[in-house]
Amino acid sequence: MTDAADDEDRARTVRLSALTAPEYVDWIAAGDAVAILPTGAFEQHGPHLPLGTDALLSSAVATAVAERTGAKVLEPFTLGYKSQQRSGGGNHLPGTISLDADALIAQARQLLRGLLSQGVRHVVVLNGHYENTQFLYEGADLALRDLGLDPGAAQSVMLLSYWDYVSPSTLEEVYPDGFPGWDVEHGGVLETSLLLHLRPELVHMKRAVSHPPAAPFRFDRLPVVAERTPDTGCLSAPDGASAEKGELLFTQTVADLADELRAELGLGRP
Amino acid sequence: MTDAADDEDRARTVRLSALTAPEYVDWIAAGDAVAILPTGAFEQHGPHLPLGTDALLSSAVATAVAERTGAKVLEPFTLGYKSQQRSGGGNHLPGTISLDADALIAQARQLLRGLLSQGVRHVVVLNGHYENTQFLYEGADLALRDLGLDPGAAQSVMLLSYWDYVSPSTLEEVYPDGFPGWDVEHGGVLETSLLLHLRPELVHMKRAVSHPPAAPFRFDRLPVVAERTPDTGCLSAPDGASAEKGELLFTQTVADLADELRAELGLGRP
Amino acid sequence: MTDAADDEDRARTVRLSALTAPEYVDWIAAGDAVAILPTGAFEQHGPHLPLGTDALLSSAVATAVAERTGAKVLEPFTLGYKSQQRSGGGNHLPGTISLDADALIAQARQLLRGLLSQGVRHVVVLNGHYENTQFLYEGADLALRDLGLDPGAAQSVMLLSYWDYVSPSTLEEVYPDGFPGWDVEHGGVLETSLLLHLRPELVHMKRAVSHPPAAPFRFDRLPVVAERTPDTGCLSAPDGASAEKGELLFTQTVADLADELRAELGLGRP
Amino acid sequence: MTDAADDEDRARTVRLSALTAPEYVDWIAAGDAVAILPTGAFEQHGPHLPLGTDALLSSAVATAVAERTGAKVLEPFTLGYKSQQRSGGGNHLPGTISLDADALIAQARQLLRGLLSQGVRHVVVLNGHYENTQFLYEGADLALRDLGLDPGAAQSVMLLSYWDYVSPSTLEEVYPDGFPGWDVEHGGVLETSLLLHLRPELVHMKRAVSHPPAAPFRFDRLPVVAERTPDTGCLSAPDGASAEKGELLFTQTVADLADELRAELGLGRP
Amino acid sequence: MTDAADDEDRARTVRLSALTAPEYVDWIAAGDAVAILPTGAFEQHGPHLPLGTDALLSSAVATAVAERTGAKVLEPFTLGYKSQQRSGGGNHLPGTISLDADALIAQARQLLRGLLSQGVRHVVVLNGHYENTQFLYEGADLALRDLGLDPGAAQSVMLLSYWDYVSPSTLEEVYPDGFPGWDVEHGGVLETSLLLHLRPELVHMKRAVSHPPAAPFRFDRLPVVAERTPDTGCLSAPDGASAEKGELLFTQTVADLADELRAELGLGRP
Amino acid sequence: MTDAADDEDRARTVRLSALTAPEYVDWIAAGDAVAILPTGAFEQHGPHLPLGTDALLSSAVATAVAERTGAKVLEPFTLGYKSQQRSGGGNHLPGTISLDADALIAQARQLLRGLLSQGVRHVVVLNGHYENTQFLYEGADLALRDLGLDPGAAQSVMLLSYWDYVSPSTLEEVYPDGFPGWDVEHGGVLETSLLLHLRPELVHMKRAVSHPPAAPFRFDRLPVVAERTPDTGCLSAPDGASAEKGELLFTQTVADLADELRAELGLGRP
Repeated sequence: MTDAADDEDRARTVRLSALTAPEYVDWIAAGDAVAILPTGAFEQHGPHLPLGTDALLSSAVATAVAERTGAKVLEPFTLGYKSQQRSGGGNHLPGTISLDADALIAQARQLLRGLLSQGVRHVVVLNGHYENTQFLYEGADLALRDLGLDPGAAQSVMLLSYWDYVSPSTLEEVYPDGFPGWDVEHGGVLETSLLLHLRPELVHMKRAVSHPPAAPFRFDRLPVVAERTPDTGCLSAPDGASAEKGELLFTQTVADLADELRAELGLGRP
Repeated sequence: MTDAADDEDRARTVRLSALTAPEYVDWIAAGDAVAILPTGAFEQHGPHLPLGTDALLSSAVATAVAERTGAKVLEPFTLGYKSQQRSGGGNHLPGTISLDADALIAQARQLLRGLLSQGVRHVVVLNGHYENTQFLYEGADLALRDLGLDPGAAQSVMLLSYWDYVSPSTLEEVYPDGFPGWDVEHGGVLETSLLLHLRPELVHMKRAVSHPPAAPFRFDRLPVVAERTPDTGCLSAPDGASAEKGELLFTQTVADLADELRAELGLGRP
Repeated sequence: MTDAADDEDRARTVRLSALTAPEYVDWIAAGDAVAILPTGAFEQHGPHLPLGTDALLSSAVATAVAERTGAKVLEPFTLGYKSQQRSGGGNHLPGTISLDADALIAQARQLLRGLLSQGVRHVVVLNGHYENTQFLYEGADLALRDLGLDPGAAQSVMLLSYWDYVSPSTLEEVYPDGFPGWDVEHGGVLETSLLLHLRPELVHMKRAVSHPPAAPFRFDRLPVVAERTPDTGCLSAPDGASAEKGELLFTQTVADLADELRAELGLGRP
Repeated sequence: MTDAADDEDRARTVRLSALTAPEYVDWIAAGDAVAILPTGAFEQHGPHLPLGTDALLSSAVATAVAERTGAKVLEPFTLGYKSQQRSGGGNHLPGTISLDADALIAQARQLLRGLLSQGVRHVVVLNGHYENTQFLYEGADLALRDLGLDPGAAQSVMLLSYWDYVSPSTLEEVYPDGFPGWDVEHGGVLETSLLLHLRPELVHMKRAVSHPPAAPFRFDRLPVVAERTPDTGCLSAPDGASAEKGELLFTQTVADLADELRAELGLGRP
Repeated sequence: MTDAADDEDRARTVRLSALTAPEYVDWIAAGDAVAILPTGAFEQHGPHLPLGTDALLSSAVATAVAERTGAKVLEPFTLGYKSQQRSGGGNHLPGTISLDADALIAQARQLLRGLLSQGVRHVVVLNGHYENTQFLYEGADLALRDLGLDPGAAQSVMLLSYWDYVSPSTLEEVYPDGFPGWDVEHGGVLETSLLLHLRPELVHMKRAVSHPPAAPFRFDRLPVVAERTPDTGCLSAPDGASAEKGELLFTQTVADLADELRAELGLGRP
Repeated sequence: MTDAADDEDRARTVRLSALTAPEYVDWIAAGDAVAILPTGAFEQHGPHLPLGTDALLSSAVATAVAERTGAKVLEPFTLGYKSQQRSGGGNHLPGTISLDADALIAQARQLLRGLLSQGVRHVVVLNGHYENTQFLYEGADLALRDLGLDPGAAQSVMLLSYWDYVSPSTLEEVYPDGFPGWDVEHGGVLETSLLLHLRPELVHMKRAVSHPPAAPFRFDRLPVVAERTPDTGCLSAPDGASAEKGELLFTQTVADLADELRAELGLGRP
């Protein structure tokens, strides 16, 4: 387990909002400024995880990646797109408050446009809430159009979700009985283990409920058929989640993600 | 191989736009009107497939499903969301002309709102262009909000992509050397085989080029790195595509999809 | 009468969506690519005509004009702006489902911007639904602004409605008792005759009802006074409509429209 | 000729903005409050007419109609939709500054919604700039949707253009050599005569230039072909315009329009 | 007291809409064209002042400033942003009809963009309704962005409210018992005195009611607590208002504002 | 000085995002749930303060107020409306990245709508960036309209800025040489002292520069005249700022604000 205050201290050193304006100017002037934008949601995560889980996790990953790459971390998007029943239980559940597409797109577009127009070289949008992806993509695309950045430009936006960096071997270790798929990883072993590792004081394992994963569907139905979301609001139970698994997940994912950014963006080590 | 004129005749019998207004009124009045909206894109599909591939395929599937379920088919959305490099080669390629999120969302929202407000019981959005999904979802969600349709309502919207109904056994037969994943199925064996079965006159197999599938990426990068899309614009080559595979794919998918709709929406057979 | 399958075959040769990407690139590269966009609506057209009448007619005209000018035809806009009581009976009638201005403008703007930015020389928006006009105009104007195309530019958008190409002598022949005006030509002799010529299997002349034309009004009133629309939903009866008149209308209009485009845009004959 | 100060005084008695709030409340409480909204544009009107011609004319007509019907007049919309080459010379001309569709629609929607929601019984949108019509219509339609006002509602919006109330006999007298059509009536005999009658001090007849009317076109072309607008910016010359014709036009049009409103809305005389 | 007809005449000479297009072109060509845009609202102003007070006052100030600076005056914005309880009594009161932010921003943006793009050197937005300010600012900022006008550009927009030019000595004279603050100056001594000076026929002093100023609040609350607005709808009573005070306020404010514009924009005297 | 880790711990207990969904449900069910939304900006604050100053301060005040009132604190809005030259130095300065009005309005509207629709009784928007105010107001107003909450409703939104709760006696103590006004309090004594008290590790007093306050202007000018912002980017220097003053400011402001909320919303003490 880590210590929240320590985390907070470490986060400060990579937090872009902690810089003064002259420090920011110097950071840009160096020519290879990379900013990471963690994104999440305000969304129910079952009886044992906090509503802010998604942004907490993407922020923690972003901070650790930044420490390993010399990037800076932006304040997270703590509101996300609507929770969908197939991936998050549904937007009808209390504790889930979401943005429409237009607000999320506009917010991403305007922030990315601002960063790139001031000279940030690359912005990495590090997503922690599945449903955000396409709207963040649209925001990035529109920001680039606003700025006239076409293929071959020196600046770029990368968009990724941290779970796509969990390796097969980690998956095997974390899910010894078989990986149920990212679709049902809402309030399940991944998120619970990570948070047990990163913010144990926010996890209430005694309240966790064991139940089979939500049945997979090949379609979205709207309005949702409420009964299709397990009563807990989790799409799979956190059975077997542990801080140790969380540490493994975190360490491996952060390392691979940092490697990817270094390779893709030509970054050194800080 | 089927006959285009035959197809056209059959399509007419299930096409909602072919009804007169009194016929439409009767159709609604029966209380169980189901309309299927095929969606596609205007998008390059390599040297051997036409730009309109996605809407052609979703329309053909929709027509066949409608014949088996008593549903009616709406005119397709022939413009779609931006082609993304990981799933469609990228929006920078000539022959790809796309809508921004706002136009696609608005069009879906307003059509769905109109249909449901006039008494259509269920609308099935049958997608044929991967990148459309989330924007169609938002359109559906906003239409339901406009109408105050909450969980438990008698009316609904279903949203699905036809390839999610390809069965494992079909996959095995169609991809005897292993299924490369839907991500790279752009201009590949699935789409080519289906079009060889449905519209052979539009497929130019002699111009098809064999090449390895596009490398998988765990991130989107914008602007795209153009070289990451194979020169053909296809994410995987149509090697081994055939009308026979197309027939198998079409027949099985249509049957399973029709079954799903019957089960989910309580439809009989026409 | 024509044959639907034949029509379909001929349509294919001029349909832009039937091209492969390399064919599209060649078409653009020739420097004089002209694309025609047919636009219509989903709108009640009385007891004898199908809901999709407007797009069927504009598409047929577009196809024939393309064959005579070497232009290509885009997939039609099958949803249009709200039917107005003075020109279409009103938007309150079942079978009429319309777009708000914003969605129609956005769709036109984005498609036109895409086509022109990829090098299409001219786009001809060929309208078949009266109420669309001004919103298509706004879409075109915004697309040109987006691209910085000012007077004198080599590229352009033309916007026209096919009925404006019906000649006085044709009018006289088609309406021997006097032309009632385009305002009330909704489900009347023009549309019925054209469809009898082009798609007789979709016309139900036995269900047509004779009645005087709707009274002309010098104002729009909203909400509509429902009784002002004749019970049939037609603003004038199709009395005297015939396939022969349809052929005359079609042949003359297509010829004059093709001549106009050739003259205006400097096109040769294909 | 009338006197501007007199006009101003008379206008004041019917101007809604001149009421105090308690007077406004009383006006509404009477149950039959009718408000007239004059709409115009900021648009070049040739060398002899002022940029504000359209709103000046619609406001004068509105005031006179209000005096004859007991209605109140709202402050005019002095900015309008883009001048189109076929009806106003074009939006590229200096002195023409226009709104996009979205702003005009939003302004109309919000004003009409506000008036109707506070109990105004009917709002008459009295247009003086051709290109405004459809966008005002959309604004009205959306306002009614916002308020849930469906056919049969006690409240309504009427939308009309004052020139549609010019009678055939007036036309004959005003255009003894034949009426060239409303399309080319931009800076021509109608507008010039009316303004000579109403605001002679704003008309510079000595600067008026005689020229044939603009050639009629069956299409819009964008960007405009600048040469197609006569050098004056007028689509027809004001040859033969006179204050006497203006008085005839004004008197007859106002009378017929007032009659129409009384009949349509069940108004008495003030 | 001034004379309305005189005012009207003088206003005409500085009104931009009274120019013909060639005069407008000349005005621009001189290189130092300054246009003033008065903005107001349609808003209850107590029992003694008219609904249109804000635009009347800003227009009168604009006209007088224009006469002293050679600027031209645009037609006023007569609809404004929502009245807020702390500054205008609240948007819930009959007689107050407001725009949402989007419409006001769009209207300002498009007008300012048009003026600047045609060569107007500076536009001065002269506000008369407190709540408008930030939305006019956003409109101006977006117009400048549209045109690529950055710091150092030769063109500019100024945004100000006329009451900010009331001098301390005037304040002392007008409010001998102490100035209650601009927040509660809604229907109070300033507006009443100014209108008594400028348009006495529109002021009903006998209906004015004396009451203490509205209590100041450090917060906005929505929905409003209706009782917090005095029954009159005024935030302070017009006790002691007089035409003489109005003349002083008007004369001093106009003089200082004209001086400011001359100094800031390098204008001469007309 | 306080301890960051302690602060973090205390913040956690009142942070809404730290609740699990069942805890959230219980909180709502109690019937008097109050949520505080701190809002700030990403904005240069001179050489000595961090870019995230505004949200840090509003969040700290929100947390302390929540502890004294039983309210919960939402994640802050860390992006704000454009910095204006008169109140924040201007949006052209590096380190300032802002939202347009539309994104800020939409984000506020959708979050407030979500909270109120799920049963939160009151939301207090606690602003820390001057320029945000009107756009947050619009967001709140639209959220209430969406929900049909009119005067008299049991639910409400309060909107306030923390500096409006600094008392006269505190002002006197903090600014012994006279209070220069909130307008120029950007990077000055208030913000610096507060941050010295709350997050001393983020303040670089040695880099602070003494200079006279920015000259006051009675107008906004766009584009800004860059020289009018002091070189530091601060509108007044932090001369005399101290942690002691910060403690006084914080303690008094929090106490008065908590009292206000208790009185206004009928809250007890936690």
